[in-house]
Amino acid sequence: MKENKYDDARFFEKYGEMERSRRGLAGAGEWPELQKLLPDFRGKAVLDLGCGYGWHCRYAAEHGAASVLGTDLSRRMLETARRKNGHENVVYQRAAMEDLAFPPGTFDVVLSSLAFHYVRDFAPLVGNIALWLRAGGAFVFSVEHPVFTAYGTQDWYYGEDGTILHFPVDNYYCEGEREAVFLGERVVKYHRTLTTYLETLLRSGFALRHVVEPRPPEEMMDLPGMRDEMRRPMMLLVSAEKI
Amino acid sequence: MKENKYDDARFFEKYGEMERSRRGLAGAGEWPELQKLLPDFRGKAVLDLGCGYGWHCRYAAEHGAASVLGTDLSRRMLETARRKNGHENVVYQRAAMEDLAFPPGTFDVVLSSLAFHYVRDFAPLVGNIALWLRAGGAFVFSVEHPVFTAYGTQDWYYGEDGTILHFPVDNYYCEGEREAVFLGERVVKYHRTLTTYLETLLRSGFALRHVVEPRPPEEMMDLPGMRDEMRRPMMLLVSAEKI
Repeated sequence: MKENKYDDARFFEKYGEMERSRRGLAGAGEWPELQKLLPDFRGKAVLDLGCGYGWHCRYAAEHGAASVLGTDLSRRMLETARRKNGHENVVYQRAAMEDLAFPPGTFDVVLSSLAFHYVRDFAPLVGNIALWLRAGGAFVFSVEHPVFTAYGTQDWYYGEDGTILHFPVDNYYCEGEREAVFLGERVVKYHRTLTTYLETLLRSGFALRHVVEPRPPEEMMDLPGMRDEMRRPMMLLVSAEKI
Repeated sequence: MKENKYDDARFFEKYGEMERSRRGLAGAGEWPELQKLLPDFRGKAVLDLGCGYGWHCRYAAEHGAASVLGTDLSRRMLETARRKNGHENVVYQRAAMEDLAFPPGTFDVVLSSLAFHYVRDFAPLVGNIALWLRAGGAFVFSVEHPVFTAYGTQDWYYGEDGTILHFPVDNYYCEGEREAVFLGERVVKYHRTLTTYLETLLRSGFALRHVVEPRPPEEMMDLPGMRDEMRRPMMLLVSAEKI
């Protein structure tokens, strides 16, 4: 499904209040780990799928990328991206990532941050990305962790007194649509197993370079709820090389 | 810790009653998936770490392995292995896998089935395995899935009426000792994150070939509790190549 909750005014406003929206990369708990997986951007042609506010696009440009194309389905996201993270080497384009088409070997680097769990069909997209990347090119992405998406609600399991008991996992092997509550709004996401994420890459001509479940950085531990993020894996970061 | 619960008579007897103990590979739900990850054994020197009853050792020998060394810490296990799965090309040896030492490049294949979660320190062991394997050699193993080991009890979370509600995950990033109940006995196992399993391999000179969470095979669905195994990932299978 080509999810576009981000053009819903109320949802978009709430999204704008998140730490990661207000503070950018410094407000994203996974950034220190994701940053380590990024390639040298100097002189590179970069594609960012589901670019959102464009933080990663600007980062790539400021670190020497020759050209960066940031794509997103949300008009509001792209407006914000152009305003907050405009750069002479960055172009923002409205598109569903499933509809994009480029000649083989167009990019040196493909990035995607927390967007693939909105995509219904992962394999054809990865096939396209493999095509769009030159040999030796880097594919680095983050997704919500399969542990986090399996049950569906993406919420803790609470005791009668309202304290967190644990995080629930269920229907792990039943891949597909889940309706989660995110920022108080109902959002459709797609659960996939770890097997599907990694085997799809391996089958599509990628070598896995890193598979990392980022833990909350020490300096963010005092943010509300952050210490509980030691209890469950919420995200999965992958870096792969086109071979 | 060099866990040796399997020399406890009562535990060993219960273990012997399990489907996988009675029926061997055909009784192990993960076998169809694990089998797909195994290399061509013909003419190969094979090491099986934590060989248990020796089912995989005999399988390798019957599929052409030139020599198979099966090691286990449990005397009872090895007695059963020699009786049930003896083969002229297989040697069974009592040893803690942490204490083994071989010259570089001794083996073409290293296997391990459901044993590494009893090992406290994974990285030095993987470093050794990388040394013992020749370049291009295969390392194929199964472990209990990090989702399965995180909470500790390895049991479902039940409602008041005794039905399964979901599987609990907690303390995911807190690696180390867990006390689980297995076959009614308390057993110490070690929880590790997926990150630790895979990044340790990548750092130790391995390329990841497959990462598979095996789901129960259709033909075993009628065994007690098997259908519930679609709800949680219990095992993780990895195949890697020494580069």
